Amino acid sequence: MHSLLAQPAMRSFAFWYLILVAKMLVVVVMTSLARIRSGTFATPEDYKFQGVEKVATEPNPDVERARRALQNDLENILPFFGVGLIYALTEPSLLFARIYFAGFALARIAHTIAYLRGMQPHRTIAFAVAQILLVLMVVTTLWKVL
Amino acid sequence: MHSLLAQPAMRSFAFWYLILVAKMLVVVVMTSLARIRSGTFATPEDYKFQGVEKVATEPNPDVERARRALQNDLENILPFFGVGLIYALTEPSLLFARIYFAGFALARIAHTIAYLRGMQPHRTIAFAVAQILLVLMVVTTLWKVL
Amino acid sequence: MHSLLAQPAMRSFAFWYLILVAKMLVVVVMTSLARIRSGTFATPEDYKFQGVEKVATEPNPDVERARRALQNDLENILPFFGVGLIYALTEPSLLFARIYFAGFALARIAHTIAYLRGMQPHRTIAFAVAQILLVLMVVTTLWKVL
Repeated sequence: MHSLLAQPAMRSFAFWYLILVAKMLVVVVMTSLARIRSGTFATPEDYKFQGVEKVATEPNPDVERARRALQNDLENILPFFGVGLIYALTEPSLLFARIYFAGFALARIAHTIAYLRGMQPHRTIAFAVAQILLVLMVVTTLWKVL
Repeated sequence: MHSLLAQPAMRSFAFWYLILVAKMLVVVVMTSLARIRSGTFATPEDYKFQGVEKVATEPNPDVERARRALQNDLENILPFFGVGLIYALTEPSLLFARIYFAGFALARIAHTIAYLRGMQPHRTIAFAVAQILLVLMVVTTLWKVL
Repeated sequence: MHSLLAQPAMRSFAFWYLILVAKMLVVVVMTSLARIRSGTFATPEDYKFQGVEKVATEPNPDVERARRALQNDLENILPFFGVGLIYALTEPSLLFARIYFAGFALARIAHTIAYLRGMQPHRTIAFAVAQILLVLMVVTTLWKVL
């Protein structure tokens, strides 16, 4: 193992980032299942491939919900990869690093669950917690690299 | 601070990447504000949560504009994280690295402003400058890792 | 060159990631060309800028196809950047690393070609191969950082 990953903060970052990618992969699979269950596909060749003759004229609510949850992940979890990695490179306090990484990851997992189940205000709270932690990481790290 | 971040090119990369994430977070907040101002939400539970009874039948132009600006960021700024990081690891000339990173970041900030204000050809010029710098970084880095 | 990039597994990762970013940039250009060819733009200022008077009332199939191919890249190639980088940091067997990185990249290139040409089941097979390799990398890496 490279010495970078031997550092506890970097290791904590790697762990939580991988958990979040696994979570995103679950939403990808759920989107496909919602497409198959509802018979709603994006292209003519998919209808043919799945043997579905009736082309849906409207988007399916379950498919759209899963897609929006994933889109929100792209906007938040993917920027986090860069931010968390650079933050871990600043060799922060391990306690703070763990709170930031675990807090962000758990808030994003709660966000997905709340989005898929249509739970408000839970979704907004989870979103806000993750955003605030991300902003704190950005500000702390900017301060250190200046 | 880890020795990686002590390198000037990596530090310049970290600085500009964090500025770009901060810029993306501003667009995220602007999208939410445009939703609230126009009363246009994505899900039934959001209408209920916000106490808006009249469900919008059409997408709101301001919301869609902010979303498209952010989508364009996902397609350009997120790939840049990997490209810029690997480029910085090749230990390039500090002058070139600074021109690439600052140029890309400033062009992407200009792109967002031009998108939100509907300014053409400014948006296309800003987009093209960022794309050309990204292509140059990809080609230079590929050449070095081959 | 930094010692990180001197490691063969990291170098293989950097090479294939850069190839995938180059592939994404090609799809971005193809989307713009499809917009210009079909006269379908996203904003009023683009119609004015391109001198197209007739505003399209429906999305163009070629534009939407290229956009969906790119969206699928965002959902798969961008998370791969983090996963592949952390996996390379675990100093894996070079043979396995090369199989994972080249396999993922070639499957994603095949996915784009199949998507743009409407080829099924080729697209689903390419998608599944890349997903399985990504899951294997996530699981292997999680195991090592635990």
